[in-house]
Amino acid sequence: MNHSPSPIDSPDAISRRDAITRSLGALAGISAIASISGSTAHALAQPATPAPAEPKKADVEMTPEQHQAILRPGKERIAIVLYPQFTALDALGPHHVFINMVGAKVLLVAKTMAPVPSDTGFSITPNATFDQITEKQTLVLVPGGTTGTLEAMKDAPTMSFLRRQGAEAQWIGSVCTGSLVLAAAGLLKGYKATSHWLTREALKAGGAEPVAQRYVEDRNRVTGAGVTAGIDFALHLVQKWRGATYAKGVQMFMEYDPQPPFNSGSPTSPDAEPAMVGMLSAMHESFGPKCETAIRAALATTPTK
Amino acid sequence: MNHSPSPIDSPDAISRRDAITRSLGALAGISAIASISGSTAHALAQPATPAPAEPKKADVEMTPEQHQAILRPGKERIAIVLYPQFTALDALGPHHVFINMVGAKVLLVAKTMAPVPSDTGFSITPNATFDQITEKQTLVLVPGGTTGTLEAMKDAPTMSFLRRQGAEAQWIGSVCTGSLVLAAAGLLKGYKATSHWLTREALKAGGAEPVAQRYVEDRNRVTGAGVTAGIDFALHLVQKWRGATYAKGVQMFMEYDPQPPFNSGSPTSPDAEPAMVGMLSAMHESFGPKCETAIRAALATTPTK
Repeated sequence: MNHSPSPIDSPDAISRRDAITRSLGALAGISAIASISGSTAHALAQPATPAPAEPKKADVEMTPEQHQAILRPGKERIAIVLYPQFTALDALGPHHVFINMVGAKVLLVAKTMAPVPSDTGFSITPNATFDQITEKQTLVLVPGGTTGTLEAMKDAPTMSFLRRQGAEAQWIGSVCTGSLVLAAAGLLKGYKATSHWLTREALKAGGAEPVAQRYVEDRNRVTGAGVTAGIDFALHLVQKWRGATYAKGVQMFMEYDPQPPFNSGSPTSPDAEPAMVGMLSAMHESFGPKCETAIRAALATTPTK
Repeated sequence: MNHSPSPIDSPDAISRRDAITRSLGALAGISAIASISGSTAHALAQPATPAPAEPKKADVEMTPEQHQAILRPGKERIAIVLYPQFTALDALGPHHVFINMVGAKVLLVAKTMAPVPSDTGFSITPNATFDQITEKQTLVLVPGGTTGTLEAMKDAPTMSFLRRQGAEAQWIGSVCTGSLVLAAAGLLKGYKATSHWLTREALKAGGAEPVAQRYVEDRNRVTGAGVTAGIDFALHLVQKWRGATYAKGVQMFMEYDPQPPFNSGSPTSPDAEPAMVGMLSAMHESFGPKCETAIRAALATTPTK
């Protein structure tokens, strides 16, 4: 669930204000909650009869001013780029994190307002077109994909938008193979960066230095490894922009308390089966070289910074 | 990135077969890869010159038959229910996991084919309507939300679909406050279940026994805690259906190697700040009771099993 409603532009200027007002309004009543137990759900569900047997973890009373200081609306402007056959979870993991920043404007942007097909069989409607992004952006983020990602590197409006943002935006980011699109736009030359483990080395074709990390921050570039890495670095960015308390609150609200049944999330994880590493590598053997070719072609035919 | 293309129904019967053929075809060449290092990205990106300095983690050679045994197409049928103002990440985290099961049919289903607005400002096009789901489903999954979730409990076609599936589907599941919709449909009576930490106790209104766990499996019901918990239990289900090796492979391919900057994912996590627990609880104080009322109203006006 999510407490920050629709980020869409003009009607939303109202709904965002409403959300903030509601949030701050709710806080006016907080001093009535004199003590907060470790798990408050019970007390909330039965407000008239707080569970007497439940041990209280801490007595916490904050003033409305303290809450308002934490919830002070920010002005981050975040554009997440969609292109045909993008990987939805790359885009929507960070989107879910950022949308919880009160006052931030988080938009899914694309070439046109037509629904954009993801690489898993459904389409998402963007919030704005590239041309409508005229404000200075706090972050422009590119998700990954496979064949669609190669096509994005050849798409003039997409590459033009990214090159412009590379010169203007405060931060440039990517998830998964999205870093290869940034490399193709000339935005990672001389930067340390990462990508999906299957395509990391292809970053070299764009003059980047591949690093085997969950996410890599080098000056104003932040690149994540495959898919779910975007959630981790989005929380890292919320910490930078809103402080640790806020970022921890977002993590708690989205219950990002990962408990995967295995520890097999990367080829070097303890539970990773070498045979599976080999099989996935074989299945995608030709993709890395294709990415390198596409990056070189994009850099050869378009101006780089 | 994702190797399983569009799950949409008829055109997709072809694309899925193609994907399987491609996967199995790729495996025919796997015996050429005599040794697989812990991180194969380098060798893949430069197939002609495998990195000599990189230590080899294990020598692995699988026969095409072994790979085909792992990749044998399954027949899981998974329907993920969309309703207006659902939380997208609740639905799309598990979707991303399941879509990697070769041969599975994973559909986003809704009342009509119109794009369904999420609670974070964008819409997703469903793959099928409720009426089009005529095959026996392996899993029917309901995502959470807030006000939209309360409305879903009042929506006759949605509740009717869920009650029907409760009698027919092999598994019934939910993420976040989606469990409250299941409770409203009478599908959790006498079951242990969980929900978002802020609404867990409201499950009692539907006769369920709330359990504070990442996910709860009770007979053929599996309910996840907030938002990202759906990724964890989806991997658990893949393990049940395809075995541990396959599930670990999916986890590795989606690089679900969580490294959040904090350990603050639940109110009882080590880094959880009690003041933030209190603030989030206060902001959503009225929601739990509203859920209870909606569950009771739904159970009073509709037949329960």
